[in-house]
Amino acid sequence: MGSGIARMVLAKPGLELVGAFSKRAHRGGMDLGEVIGLDRVLGISINTDLEKVIEETQPEVAIQASYSRATDAAIDISTLVQHGINVISIADEMVYPQQKFPALAESLHWEAVSHGVSILGTGANPGFVLDLLVITLTGVCADIHTITARRVNDLSAYGPSVLASQGVGLTIDAFHEGLQNFTIVGHVGFVESMHMIARAVGWEIERVEETREPIVSQVRRATSFVTVEPGQVAGCHHKAIAFVGGIPVITLDHPQQVEPQLEGIQTGDSIEILGSPHISISGSPEIPGGQATMALAVNTIPRVLNSAPGLHTMTDLPVSAAMLTDARRFLLE
Amino acid sequence: MGSGIARMVLAKPGLELVGAFSKRAHRGGMDLGEVIGLDRVLGISINTDLEKVIEETQPEVAIQASYSRATDAAIDISTLVQHGINVISIADEMVYPQQKFPALAESLHWEAVSHGVSILGTGANPGFVLDLLVITLTGVCADIHTITARRVNDLSAYGPSVLASQGVGLTIDAFHEGLQNFTIVGHVGFVESMHMIARAVGWEIERVEETREPIVSQVRRATSFVTVEPGQVAGCHHKAIAFVGGIPVITLDHPQQVEPQLEGIQTGDSIEILGSPHISISGSPEIPGGQATMALAVNTIPRVLNSAPGLHTMTDLPVSAAMLTDARRFLLE
Repeated sequence: MGSGIARMVLAKPGLELVGAFSKRAHRGGMDLGEVIGLDRVLGISINTDLEKVIEETQPEVAIQASYSRATDAAIDISTLVQHGINVISIADEMVYPQQKFPALAESLHWEAVSHGVSILGTGANPGFVLDLLVITLTGVCADIHTITARRVNDLSAYGPSVLASQGVGLTIDAFHEGLQNFTIVGHVGFVESMHMIARAVGWEIERVEETREPIVSQVRRATSFVTVEPGQVAGCHHKAIAFVGGIPVITLDHPQQVEPQLEGIQTGDSIEILGSPHISISGSPEIPGGQATMALAVNTIPRVLNSAPGLHTMTDLPVSAAMLTDARRFLLE
Repeated sequence: MGSGIARMVLAKPGLELVGAFSKRAHRGGMDLGEVIGLDRVLGISINTDLEKVIEETQPEVAIQASYSRATDAAIDISTLVQHGINVISIADEMVYPQQKFPALAESLHWEAVSHGVSILGTGANPGFVLDLLVITLTGVCADIHTITARRVNDLSAYGPSVLASQGVGLTIDAFHEGLQNFTIVGHVGFVESMHMIARAVGWEIERVEETREPIVSQVRRATSFVTVEPGQVAGCHHKAIAFVGGIPVITLDHPQQVEPQLEGIQTGDSIEILGSPHISISGSPEIPGGQATMALAVNTIPRVLNSAPGLHTMTDLPVSAAMLTDARRFLLE
């Protein structure tokens, strides 16, 4: 993801990529151009010391693409903020850290305020498809009974670590074992999306019920990284239901698997709001997670620079649009 | 629309409806409950003198549902602003007055700033379906070639003035005559939506080509207000195409007619973005214009009260969500 974001920043007029940090020691000193797959030397060498890269490059904003968990992400975010640098993070849990990590969120918020900068967590999911887009659609409703959002995606392009986290290629028994020992996590982001939606509409969630079921393949499914035989697990069907007043009000449904088309499963996103009025939209194939996350990381730059200092969520700021001209044009005076 | 908005305000905990203004002299002194179709007296009598209703009720925010044109709407908006009252207007042209009426927009902006209040134009279309929703979706794109948004709706519930503005029930000749003498206008809002999108993504529109074609009915279509015989006009197919660099980049397509289902036409909204990545979403039936506009008028209240003073558009503020709890909970401290 970091490579794709770097390529996008390099391609955008009005943005200047001034430095690169990696936590992977073996990348230290390598030219960024080589690491991100360009056929040219950029003259930006990868630094493995965050303090040093900050001192040498003094960026206005940093995009963090190193972690999924907020507790991991927060350490570098805090360092950046203390040096007066705005931060956009694609760590899943940073999209709405207020629920799982209220103290951390509070501390990051005041740190950002006191250094006059902003922090934003973003991404396709969590961050957009199953939360911001849902919330945007609720705006046309006078009342709402239930919200159901479903994202059926294709993991075929993903590498070993993502596939392992969804149990792809395992037997059914190994899948259930993986759930027990937390090596299979399903989707990271339901808690964040649920609570973003609930906060936006003013619902107080009593409890969230989550289920993770193996998607057992009937056919052979093969990708560059894994082969799933019939009877083995092709992915994880992760679903979360939030209750308010004893009633299931928000359902987020996210079956993730490799090669879904081999069993005639069409990927896509859908949002259904039962209320006044009913709202139902859908799109197929799904909004591509990787590309969308990279684009959001870059497109949110002006929103972050224009915002009041603090820790923000995607719903606190005006929506981010594609930047199809010089990025500086999107900054408020 | 005003009646529906008033009913919604009355139903929302945390909102207090303090006064009602009508420009229709015959409504002066009538109880609001009677006028908006409630079976009870509200003790709020309709005032036809705007200055007087302001003095007597001192509202925090006014919702204006009296006009479609910005030049009409601006007079009352200005009066309200000068009395320190925030204004939400559902006048179509107030959704983005900056393009057609830059001087008016500039003047309203500074008037709002100097009185420490905000002005927002909102509505289903313009204001949401063919602009805010489109812009929100562009956020997941690194690059965009073309944007096409289409809204196929049903005018059957609308009364004589809307039907006349779309030429419903006319002969084909009378329709073309109506276009010539501007009694048939088609959709009011394309210029606003086009320029909202273009500004959001940084495109400079060179020109907009608009076409208005009669939708000639093959069958008899009847509503409470009009009967369309075969060969007569069932509505207006209004389309606008914006060009950048000689290339048609934004197409907004909005055929409006009565009883479309009688010819097997399914109503709905669709947005297609050709870019990196491609994005395609749709929903059927269409997001209902009347209900959505009323909901947005009310749901934007906290966003307007939370905003910095000035004239805003829907894309300048965080998205409005449904308010499913006490409205005061949505105000920033």
